[in-house]
Amino acid sequence: MRQKGFTLWFTGLPCSGKTTVADALAKDLRDRGMKVERLDGDIVRKGLTRDLGFTKEDREMNIERVTFVAKLLTRNEVAVLCTFVSPYNKIRHKSREEIGEYILVYVKASPEECAKRDVKGMWAKAKAGEIKNFTGYDDPFEDPENPEIVINTETETIEESKSKILDWLNNKGYLQN
Amino acid sequence: MRQKGFTLWFTGLPCSGKTTVADALAKDLRDRGMKVERLDGDIVRKGLTRDLGFTKEDREMNIERVTFVAKLLTRNEVAVLCTFVSPYNKIRHKSREEIGEYILVYVKASPEECAKRDVKGMWAKAKAGEIKNFTGYDDPFEDPENPEIVINTETETIEESKSKILDWLNNKGYLQN
Repeated sequence: MRQKGFTLWFTGLPCSGKTTVADALAKDLRDRGMKVERLDGDIVRKGLTRDLGFTKEDREMNIERVTFVAKLLTRNEVAVLCTFVSPYNKIRHKSREEIGEYILVYVKASPEECAKRDVKGMWAKAKAGEIKNFTGYDDPFEDPENPEIVINTETETIEESKSKILDWLNNKGYLQN
Repeated sequence: MRQKGFTLWFTGLPCSGKTTVADALAKDLRDRGMKVERLDGDIVRKGLTRDLGFTKEDREMNIERVTFVAKLLTRNEVAVLCTFVSPYNKIRHKSREEIGEYILVYVKASPEECAKRDVKGMWAKAKAGEIKNFTGYDDPFEDPENPEIVINTETETIEESKSKILDWLNNKGYLQN
């Protein structure tokens, strides 16, 4: 049985738990023998997008390039897990149109909870005015209009969030046994 | 039998025939049921690299991004056919290191012959001074140091060049039957 390609696109505030859940899920999918690629800021900013900052234009360009890569991998039967704040509906829609097999996962957590976690000290820097255009602080995060899956990392464990996504994929025939 | 991923990297002067040979080969590989992606300037400059021009730095950045994409596709069992002038050995070496299963195809044709073909009128523009940094005219093309395959589009037909590459791939176990 050939694997069906798809892109799971995780959107959510900084520190909402996108990477944690996606990494756990990636491991699970790989254990099933599936081909998986993870795309996130730390990975793409090394090469693909290292000229870009965090203005609206730069964010848009960043997502545009990632979308190009996700599209090519998806149509070649890879499970692509993208974790980007990706705060704007307009740009999410463009990615969906381009990629086709695009599954939007809204990773929910309140700004207060995200600021408390602050794994990289970015929320603190935003509050101190050292970073500008920080989503959730001085740049807006638009609630996704039509996410296929919503997880809440404040009320669910990582395992629970992961299971929610796996169940969805299984029901839609995306999982390989 | 699973397909083995690889990148065929076509290097050569503008109008040397890279695209023509790669397109013919891509069709042949697809007819064998293989997964194939074509990456060339016209494709990537629409999205992935539309901010870039033709200075040495921009060319380097261009190839860096394409290399990232080719690497991900290659390790996911896709046959990737890249056609870029890619005139510098240093940058070709970097692509080879990154991609791993990298097969360099040197597409040979004399500058005189390429200027005569001039499919997009670029050689004429370079000569008229309308384009700067044009490889083969006012920017150097370094002969590849260690190409796996050399084809000569002045002395061979497209079919002959294609067969040369197919034979090489077959001998090395890259072809799927």
